[in-house]
Amino acid sequence: MDTAGAAPRWPIPDPMRAALQAAHEAARAGEVPVGAAVVRGAQVIAIAANATRSPPDPTGHAEIRALRLAAEAIGDERLTGCDLYVTLEPCAMCAGAISHARIARLYYAASDPKGGAVEHGARVFEQKQCLHRPEVYSGMGETEAAELLRGFFRERR
Amino acid sequence: MDTAGAAPRWPIPDPMRAALQAAHEAARAGEVPVGAAVVRGAQVIAIAANATRSPPDPTGHAEIRALRLAAEAIGDERLTGCDLYVTLEPCAMCAGAISHARIARLYYAASDPKGGAVEHGARVFEQKQCLHRPEVYSGMGETEAAELLRGFFRERR
Repeated sequence: MDTAGAAPRWPIPDPMRAALQAAHEAARAGEVPVGAAVVRGAQVIAIAANATRSPPDPTGHAEIRALRLAAEAIGDERLTGCDLYVTLEPCAMCAGAISHARIARLYYAASDPKGGAVEHGARVFEQKQCLHRPEVYSGMGETEAAELLRGFFRERR
Repeated sequence: MDTAGAAPRWPIPDPMRAALQAAHEAARAGEVPVGAAVVRGAQVIAIAANATRSPPDPTGHAEIRALRLAAEAIGDERLTGCDLYVTLEPCAMCAGAISHARIARLYYAASDPKGGAVEHGARVFEQKQCLHRPEVYSGMGETEAAELLRGFFRERR
C-alpha cells in the first residue's frame, strides 16, 4: 500500500471532468448540482448544467439541455455516434431523451436510487418500448458527484 | 338508435380540440402529428405541436414543448394545479417531465403500446421513484388522434 486514501477505480475522463465542472456551476447558481457533456469522437460538443429555476423550466435537467445544445450544434435531432457524460444517474425523462437522441454510450457518475431510471425504477432502457439502448457505464467521478449533491442539500436543510 | 356511426364515449373537451389542432399542424410541417395543451382553470396557457426536426431537437415532443411554454408563461417550474392534454400516450421522457412539472391531471387521447410509458412499458407514474403522480384520464379524441398518426405513417411508407 503506497496510498492512504481509497484509490479511484479509474481515472475520471475529461468529459466527466467537464460535467462535474458544470455541476459545480449549477450549485453556485442555486440549482441542484448536476452537469452533463456530449462528446463526438474526441470533441466535447455540448456542456450543460442543471437549470430548472431560472428561467423556470421543469425539463431543464443537465442531460436535456446538453442534448438540445448538441442537436443544435450538429444540425440533427439524432446524435448518432455521440456519447453522453452526466454526473448523476438519469431520471425517466432524461433516459427517454437519451434514447430518442440515439446516444451511443452513456456514462454516469453517481447512481440515484431515489430518482434514477436506468438501474432503478422505470429502467427505461430495459423496456421493449425503448427503440434505442445506449451502452451504459457508471462510477467514474461518483465520489465527487455524490459529495457535491450531499453538500448542496445539507446546506438547504 | 338515432345515429349510424359509433357515438363517441364523451364529447371532446376544448383543450383536447386545441391539442388535436396542433397535431394537424405538425403533420402539415412534416413532423409526427402529436399535439399538447396545458390548462390552468378554464384557461389554455400553452399549446404546442411535436417538433423534433426543424429545429433539430430530440426532446421536442409536444408535451415537453407545452410544459416549457407554460412554465415560462406562469414564471414557475412547477405547474401546480395545471392539467395537460395530449393526443398520444406520453413516452418515458414526457411522463417524467409531466411528473417533474407537478401536472395535476393528464388527459391523453390515443394509447401507444409501441412507445407509451403510462399504461405500457416503463409505467413511469407507478414507480416509487416517481415523486408526483397526476390523475390520468384517456380516450377522449382517440379516434381522430390515432387516424391522424396512421395517415401520417401510411403516406411515408
